[in-house]
Amino acid sequence: MRDVAVIGVGMTKWGELWEKSLRTIFSETALLAIDDAGVDHIDSMVVGCMSSGLFIGQEHLASLLPDYLGKNPVPATRVESACSSGGLALRYGFLEVASGMSDIVLVGGVEKMTDVTGCEATFALGTAADQEYESYHGATFPALYAMMAVAHMHKYGTTREQLGLVAVKNHENGSKNPLAQFPFKVSLEAVLSSVLVADPLRILDCSPITDGAAAVVLGPADMAKTLKKRRVRITGSGHATDSIALVSRRDLAAIESTRIAAQKALAMARRKIDDIHLFEVHDCFTIAEIMVTEALGLVRQGQGGKAVEDGLTSITGKYPVNPSGGLKAKGHPVGATGVAQVVEVVKQLRGEAGERQVKGAERGLTQNMGGTGGSSLVHVFEAD
Amino acid sequence: MRDVAVIGVGMTKWGELWEKSLRTIFSETALLAIDDAGVDHIDSMVVGCMSSGLFIGQEHLASLLPDYLGKNPVPATRVESACSSGGLALRYGFLEVASGMSDIVLVGGVEKMTDVTGCEATFALGTAADQEYESYHGATFPALYAMMAVAHMHKYGTTREQLGLVAVKNHENGSKNPLAQFPFKVSLEAVLSSVLVADPLRILDCSPITDGAAAVVLGPADMAKTLKKRRVRITGSGHATDSIALVSRRDLAAIESTRIAAQKALAMARRKIDDIHLFEVHDCFTIAEIMVTEALGLVRQGQGGKAVEDGLTSITGKYPVNPSGGLKAKGHPVGATGVAQVVEVVKQLRGEAGERQVKGAERGLTQNMGGTGGSSLVHVFEAD
Repeated sequence: MRDVAVIGVGMTKWGELWEKSLRTIFSETALLAIDDAGVDHIDSMVVGCMSSGLFIGQEHLASLLPDYLGKNPVPATRVESACSSGGLALRYGFLEVASGMSDIVLVGGVEKMTDVTGCEATFALGTAADQEYESYHGATFPALYAMMAVAHMHKYGTTREQLGLVAVKNHENGSKNPLAQFPFKVSLEAVLSSVLVADPLRILDCSPITDGAAAVVLGPADMAKTLKKRRVRITGSGHATDSIALVSRRDLAAIESTRIAAQKALAMARRKIDDIHLFEVHDCFTIAEIMVTEALGLVRQGQGGKAVEDGLTSITGKYPVNPSGGLKAKGHPVGATGVAQVVEVVKQLRGEAGERQVKGAERGLTQNMGGTGGSSLVHVFEAD
Repeated sequence: MRDVAVIGVGMTKWGELWEKSLRTIFSETALLAIDDAGVDHIDSMVVGCMSSGLFIGQEHLASLLPDYLGKNPVPATRVESACSSGGLALRYGFLEVASGMSDIVLVGGVEKMTDVTGCEATFALGTAADQEYESYHGATFPALYAMMAVAHMHKYGTTREQLGLVAVKNHENGSKNPLAQFPFKVSLEAVLSSVLVADPLRILDCSPITDGAAAVVLGPADMAKTLKKRRVRITGSGHATDSIALVSRRDLAAIESTRIAAQKALAMARRKIDDIHLFEVHDCFTIAEIMVTEALGLVRQGQGGKAVEDGLTSITGKYPVNPSGGLKAKGHPVGATGVAQVVEVVKQLRGEAGERQVKGAERGLTQNMGGTGGSSLVHVFEAD
C-alpha cells in the first residue's frame, strides 16, 4: 500500500445553523478543504453521515453531495457507523489512496440535526443503540452512558467532580476555538449544578445537538511533498466493533472496541502511545473521555478520572486530550465529528492551532466511536 | 493491487418476511455465504443498506450485524447509496482485499421494508431523490421513472408493449428462481391491464417492496485456487455519479452514470461489452432495464425497446439480461439488490443456476443504480 497524507483541511463554524441546509453546510466546508489542498480536481469522495434519513428526510448523499459540489461524475460513497461515521469515512478514503484506486480523495462528514424537535433528535440518535434490546424500551443515550458512569464510579471510585472536570477542561480549550459551538469556559460549580439529565450525568456532561460539517483532502504522500504546507501522513488506521447493546458487554466500565482499534492503529504506525503528542477523542459524555483515556492506554484502567484531576490531559499536560474543545464544547454533529478530529490534529501538527496550540506536536491520534462503543476508529498522524 | 475472487455466495428466499427481523434475515444469509466459501473466519465485513433508520428505526448496522453474526470485534462498515448500496458494498469489499488490508471479507446487503405502511415505504424510498427539488413536492419514484419513460417513448418511439415485454421476460426467468419473491410468469395482457401507478407505468412495470438479504465472501484470487468451487474473479469495478434530481440532467432518456461506470469497469477488466455472456441489471421499473441496456452499450441509444421485443435480452438471446428474474420478479430489498446480482452471476459462472442457466457463461456483469441514476456501480466477473 502507498503512503497517504492529509493535504488539505476545512471546517466552518458549528452551531444551530437554521439558515443553511445540509448540502450548503457540506459544500462550504468541502470547498475550504479543496482550497487548502490547492488541488484543481478530486478523483473520488467519501462522506460520513449518521442519519440524514431521519434528520432531514434525505438519503443518497453519495449522489446529492458531489452534485452540489459540482463534482459529478466522480465516484462518491456514504458510510455510516453512528457517531463514528466520520472516522469510518477517513478509513475508506485512506484505503482508496493507499490501494492506488484514487489519487485525490475528498473525505467529509456532515450532520444537520436541528431541523427536528428534541424528541425526534433523541429518537434518531437512539438508532445507534440496539432497537430491540435498548432504544425501544426507552433507553436514550444519556441513560446508557449514565449506566456506564455508575459502573465506573462503583468499580474504580471515580467521582462526580472528576466527571465535571472533563467538561471544565474541554470548555477551557474550546474557548480558544472560534469554530466551536460553545466557545466559552464553564466552572466546575456550573457543571455540578446544571440540570440533571440521567443520574449522574447533567446537561453540562453531555455534548450538544449540532449542525456542522468537516472535510479533509487525502493524497499520496509523495505528492504531498510538493505542496507548501507541512506534510501530515496517516501512519495508522485501526477499526474494531463490539456488541451494540450494553447487556452483552463483559464490562460496562471499559470500551473494548477502542482498546483494540488503538492497538491496531499503533501497530500499523509502529508507535507506542507515549510517542503521541496530542489526542482528539470522543467525549460525547464526560464519562466517555475518562473511559477512552484508559482504553487508549494513557493511564491504567480506572485511573481516567484521576488523570483529568491531575491535569495530565490538559493542553500543557503530558497527554493533551481534546485541545479543540472536544465534542463537549466544539459540538457534535454526529457524522462530522470524526473528520473534525482530523482537522484539529492536522492544524496542530502544522502549528496552525493558535491559542490552543500544543507545543512541539509532531504526532497526533484521533479516536471516534459509535453508540456506547459498538464501533471504534483510531487513526495516527505524523508530521515530517 | 491484488486479484480478488468471490469465494462464497448466499441468499435466502425473498418476500414479505414478517416473522423475521433485519438482523435474522442478514445473519441467515451471511452464514450461507460463509459456509459456501468454506472459511473458518472473516477479517472484516461490509454491508449495503439504504434506510434501516426510516424502515425499522435502526442505524449502526456496522455494530449490530457483526454482533448478531458472532463476529465482533471484526471491523465492519455500512455503506449507503440508495438502491445501489449493495453494489457499493461490493466495491468497498473489493478494495479491502485488493489493497491487502484484509484477506477474507464478507460483503452483504439487506433491507427490511415491509414493517411499515405503504406511505412510509414510499417516503423512505423517496429519500433517494432530491428532497428539496423532487420528493417534498410529491414526486415518488414511479412518477420520476414515468417521466423518464415518457421522454424515451417520445424521443425514440419506444412502445407501451415493449415496456411490458421486459416484465414478461423477467417473470419468465424468475419463474425458474425458487428464491424469487414472485416466481411466476405474467402475460403481456396482464401487464397492460394491471393497475396504473404513474402513467405510462403500471403495477407490473414496477419492482416490489421486499424483505431480503444477500451475501458474498471475497478473498485473494490466489487463495481461491485451493477451494473446491470454480473460481470467479472480480476483474473490473466502475463507479460514477450524476445529478440527483432529474431537473439537472441533460437527457431524461439516458442513464449517464451507468454508461461511465460500465466504461470504467470494462476498461479495468480489459474487456469489451461483447466479451460478456450475461448481465444482471437494475430493472427497478421496466423502462430502467431498457435504458440500462443502452447505457451498457448492448444496443444503440434508443434501441432498448426493440432489443427486448426481438428477444436479444432473453436467456437464449445474444445478451441474456436478468436471468435471475431481475428486481421485477426476484424482488427489490433495496440495499440487498446489488449483492444479489453478484450471487446470481457467480451461480451462473459456476454452472449452478439450474433451469435458468445461461449456457457456456464464462464472464458476467452486474449493474446496480441508485435513485434515477444519481449513482451507478458496474462490476465484471470472470470464471477461470
